[in-house]
Amino acid sequence: MTGADAEHTTATDLTDLLRDVLDGRWSATRDAVRAHIAADDVVPRSDLSIPEYRARMLEQMTAMVPLGFPADGFAASHGGTGDVGAAVTAIETLGYGDLSLMVKAGVQWGLFGGAIENLGTARHHERYVRGTIDLDVLGCFAMTETGHGSNVQALETTATYLPETGEFEITSPTASARKDYIGGAAQHARYAAVFAQLITAGPGEEQQGRGVHCFVVRIRDDDGNDLPGVTTSDCGRKGGLPGVDNGRIVFDHVRIPRDDLLNRYGDVAADGTYSSPIESVNRRFFTMLGTLIRGRVTVGAAAGAAGRLGLATAVKYALVRRQFSAPDSDDELVLLDYRTHQRRLLPLVARAYAFAVAQNEVVAELHELQSGDPSEADPDAVRKLEVKAAAIKAGHTALASQAVSQAREACGGAGYLDENRLSLLRGDIDVFTTFEGDNLILRQLVAKNLLTAYAADMSDLDAVGWIRFVASTVRDIALEKTAARQVVQTLLDDSDEDPEDSDLTHPGTQLRLLRNREDHLLRTAAARMQRASADDADAQEVFTETQDHLIKVGDAHIERIVLEIFVDVIGSVEDRAARTVLKRVRDLFVYSLLEEDLGWFLMHRHVSVERAKAIRRGVNDLCGTLRPHADALVDAFGVPDVALDVPMIRHG
Amino acid sequence: MTGADAEHTTATDLTDLLRDVLDGRWSATRDAVRAHIAADDVVPRSDLSIPEYRARMLEQMTAMVPLGFPADGFAASHGGTGDVGAAVTAIETLGYGDLSLMVKAGVQWGLFGGAIENLGTARHHERYVRGTIDLDVLGCFAMTETGHGSNVQALETTATYLPETGEFEITSPTASARKDYIGGAAQHARYAAVFAQLITAGPGEEQQGRGVHCFVVRIRDDDGNDLPGVTTSDCGRKGGLPGVDNGRIVFDHVRIPRDDLLNRYGDVAADGTYSSPIESVNRRFFTMLGTLIRGRVTVGAAAGAAGRLGLATAVKYALVRRQFSAPDSDDELVLLDYRTHQRRLLPLVARAYAFAVAQNEVVAELHELQSGDPSEADPDAVRKLEVKAAAIKAGHTALASQAVSQAREACGGAGYLDENRLSLLRGDIDVFTTFEGDNLILRQLVAKNLLTAYAADMSDLDAVGWIRFVASTVRDIALEKTAARQVVQTLLDDSDEDPEDSDLTHPGTQLRLLRNREDHLLRTAAARMQRASADDADAQEVFTETQDHLIKVGDAHIERIVLEIFVDVIGSVEDRAARTVLKRVRDLFVYSLLEEDLGWFLMHRHVSVERAKAIRRGVNDLCGTLRPHADALVDAFGVPDVALDVPMIRHG
Repeated sequence: MTGADAEHTTATDLTDLLRDVLDGRWSATRDAVRAHIAADDVVPRSDLSIPEYRARMLEQMTAMVPLGFPADGFAASHGGTGDVGAAVTAIETLGYGDLSLMVKAGVQWGLFGGAIENLGTARHHERYVRGTIDLDVLGCFAMTETGHGSNVQALETTATYLPETGEFEITSPTASARKDYIGGAAQHARYAAVFAQLITAGPGEEQQGRGVHCFVVRIRDDDGNDLPGVTTSDCGRKGGLPGVDNGRIVFDHVRIPRDDLLNRYGDVAADGTYSSPIESVNRRFFTMLGTLIRGRVTVGAAAGAAGRLGLATAVKYALVRRQFSAPDSDDELVLLDYRTHQRRLLPLVARAYAFAVAQNEVVAELHELQSGDPSEADPDAVRKLEVKAAAIKAGHTALASQAVSQAREACGGAGYLDENRLSLLRGDIDVFTTFEGDNLILRQLVAKNLLTAYAADMSDLDAVGWIRFVASTVRDIALEKTAARQVVQTLLDDSDEDPEDSDLTHPGTQLRLLRNREDHLLRTAAARMQRASADDADAQEVFTETQDHLIKVGDAHIERIVLEIFVDVIGSVEDRAARTVLKRVRDLFVYSLLEEDLGWFLMHRHVSVERAKAIRRGVNDLCGTLRPHADALVDAFGVPDVALDVPMIRHG
Repeated sequence: MTGADAEHTTATDLTDLLRDVLDGRWSATRDAVRAHIAADDVVPRSDLSIPEYRARMLEQMTAMVPLGFPADGFAASHGGTGDVGAAVTAIETLGYGDLSLMVKAGVQWGLFGGAIENLGTARHHERYVRGTIDLDVLGCFAMTETGHGSNVQALETTATYLPETGEFEITSPTASARKDYIGGAAQHARYAAVFAQLITAGPGEEQQGRGVHCFVVRIRDDDGNDLPGVTTSDCGRKGGLPGVDNGRIVFDHVRIPRDDLLNRYGDVAADGTYSSPIESVNRRFFTMLGTLIRGRVTVGAAAGAAGRLGLATAVKYALVRRQFSAPDSDDELVLLDYRTHQRRLLPLVARAYAFAVAQNEVVAELHELQSGDPSEADPDAVRKLEVKAAAIKAGHTALASQAVSQAREACGGAGYLDENRLSLLRGDIDVFTTFEGDNLILRQLVAKNLLTAYAADMSDLDAVGWIRFVASTVRDIALEKTAARQVVQTLLDDSDEDPEDSDLTHPGTQLRLLRNREDHLLRTAAARMQRASADDADAQEVFTETQDHLIKVGDAHIERIVLEIFVDVIGSVEDRAARTVLKRVRDLFVYSLLEEDLGWFLMHRHVSVERAKAIRRGVNDLCGTLRPHADALVDAFGVPDVALDVPMIRHG
């Protein structure tokens, strides 16, 4: 590959070509944010006190307003520009700068702004959108409670409607109802989008819970003092993200006007009558949550950027740092010349490529969905995008966390010094696997949706009810035989039915292996649940016994869809040299996935012993093949120079 | 197991019995340090500035002096008490408190003190030991240089003997010769044990390098100012260990008296004549390094304690935190009732047990070795202990890092708040895989020693020379057929030759599987090198191609010896209930190791497909079996209450 194919393409050309592939549709936004990162020196710091860091965040957010990104996430008719893809991409790109700023921006414009934009109606858009964009209205997103992280439906905060005054009364009835970990709640936020159980009664009705709804609640006055009935506190220092003022909020019978219910999917009339365009309480709840999908997409994307930053840092260092030179030799080896060092970093670089292009597709689909008229959206397509967003969020944040930890370790003692920033990045990225959906929960959510063929109405079932649902409804669950993408289907048709007989560097073989694994896991999971039900087994026990199987279904699905997207994107690359390099990147991505799960593939006879040995050798060989392109591969990430300007890279 | 066997043993009894197993020979020391951790509130803090934290460290070290631990590491004849095992165990136990203090104590009494004790002679013991113990002499250990982390033999700092004045001149000739990452060098240290290339000439000789030696150099005056010719600087903030003042030192022709060469293994006469009891430059070098083995043992042990602290924290939280309660049920499940949560934590708990007892054995062997007359020590035994110490350091620090990261993630958002300390522990433990020997280097060192049958004189070879050495000398390298431990040999004899035919819960089968893997890897590694040499292949390329194979040899060896020790220790437990629980812990340890490397075992036909499936199920089943004992298992770690007194455990 390094010979004839590449000879007409210089390294610079190659970098540019690869960068085009990674940058995708919103490349202009990426470039603008890259320039801004350099101009405003958006890099993580360890020399600031917490108050200084927090103040810096507000300044840096203010500096972003004139650039237009903050307006991109809101419809033109509400005072924005209506470019959702650009809004997400801008915040993603801050992952090359400082994740504290990324999270602050994400909370203000993505989560708080997204709640107003997507759950509110005209009166809220008029009242809050402009201020949210230009920071006159500083908001936070008060969903999580101390007692309820992943189980939003069980939130305890109540919003009781009082028809006599036309107000809601927001209250935290128990200690576990306290809003917790809320970014912005410790200091900056003046408003909160509060998720609470709505309780109301129409004339003649008994008071009754209507499920979780979202309310805009003013929590602080202009001077930053808690308003009466509101008690905020500070979560204190954390493992990272020092610029994010995470806090807690307790509500003690706080009254807000009826108008401040974000009433797009559920409304309360002056007399207390509840109404909603969606009849099922559960479907209503998941529709509301679904409109907030943007946060999950953004977190996955930004984690991806941070992972690429970590890998670029470690690869650049490994290209300058010399170690253990042969005593009688002049040509000292750099770290990246060692196979073990290549094995540490290059498979992760390959994964970073695959996930980056998969993430781009999710962003584009989100853009299409949220740019159109929401009432026209196909609920099935919405549901599928939610599952895909969950899948990519879980996969991309896990990859980022692993990449940054590995990068730190690969840089030895230098990697531990804050001046080289990997230690800061490691602290910052750590929580991405937890917030906006804990990865363990998301992987199960993905699997459950596959097993119920995205049935909308199973969302109200607990674990046991859900097992019974699967067991009773599913007869022969399996992956669709026809791939959604033409290119994938063609490649599958073009490859041998039995992957063992096909060339392992053929993308059709690769696709088939990952599809077969997912299909196998899906069918056996369904069968286990049916068997269990037939035997009248304890459903709770069945759930316990199959939970790790479910998670594996989720993982297999994530890796399969990422490969399909990557293959699709590579097929559209016109330059032959770039395409050739990308194919080897894809091979390394696939080989390293196979190697990681070789036990499964062998155990279920999807791979022979001979092929297994070839896979292990293949990872080594591909590391060697890609070694000469390592610099170009990470340059193509387009990390701003300022983010890589650290002492260990400057001085080797 | 939970029935008849355990019925006569209460949970408290069980905890005490298990704790006895883990505490081992220096249990009194452990208890004393536990009490001291509580008494002096030795826990990591995130509310202190760097200057405050550093000051706190000196205070806390001072408070430890009267307890006697600091004197334990020095011979009675030098002013200590000569209980090496107690010295190491005391510092290990600080891993339950604050790793910053552990590192500061380790540098002062272990590394600096160890250099004086083991490389010095009577004059140094008289001059420095007492002050090192009681902190009148604050020292640092100046080995690592900016350009040379793992390759100590290539250090550039020079110590040139000047016969005209009877002094050495210490100098950093290049930028890469700067001493770097040195704990204590930024602020507290007044003295440094400096490793430098000794250059001297006897009468009529040419000046010549004599290899790396160690010198005591005064670097600061009593007020903390750099002495003339010495320039110290601060490494600044790091990913953790905020109380450790890591710094850099540059020497510009600093003169020290001839007496300050630590001259046990190499001396310079007044006229410049060099002499040494060890002829070979390389053997001399490795003998000097070998006497410093205590630091490596201590770091592995303390990491183990920190890993246990992390696991105890996460298990305790998982026993109080309720999540996703079934809607119509009163009995909410705690996190640890979920199989996925058990799978996250319990296999790591099992590994923590196995490594803890293996670590105890290494400490005991170190104690025996360093308590005797060093000139009597069997060089072969010394070498084997060095390799074993390297193996356990690499394995134990890697386990600790993984355990703490997993613990953080298993505690979700709460785990990210510094008030719950897992985030601090995660930052502190991260560098343990790097310092006192980077794990990647240590795993190769283990493998190389196995391949050369611990040949002492291969240590001066570079990678290429080493490959040639193995290829030319080794005919049929293989694991010794007879186990060193009688109990292991008996179990092996008692099990079927073909592990596939034996019960997988039989320890003989388990031992055989891990022995067979190591043996297979060892033989194939040797064969690859011989083949390569026979073909006249490029030795550098052979090294590159086999490097990941070597690392796998190292890993297989580490896991095998840990299992052998664990089996040995379990065999000596008298209480039947405790022994039964420990056997299930051993099973989970083995099953999870096998599961992790299932690809290899299947690929090389050491495990059948049927057995592979049984292994996967077995991990699940064992998690279920041990779930009722989870609390007792972590209570037996004996983590002081103060270390577990964090908000998330107090409040759930």
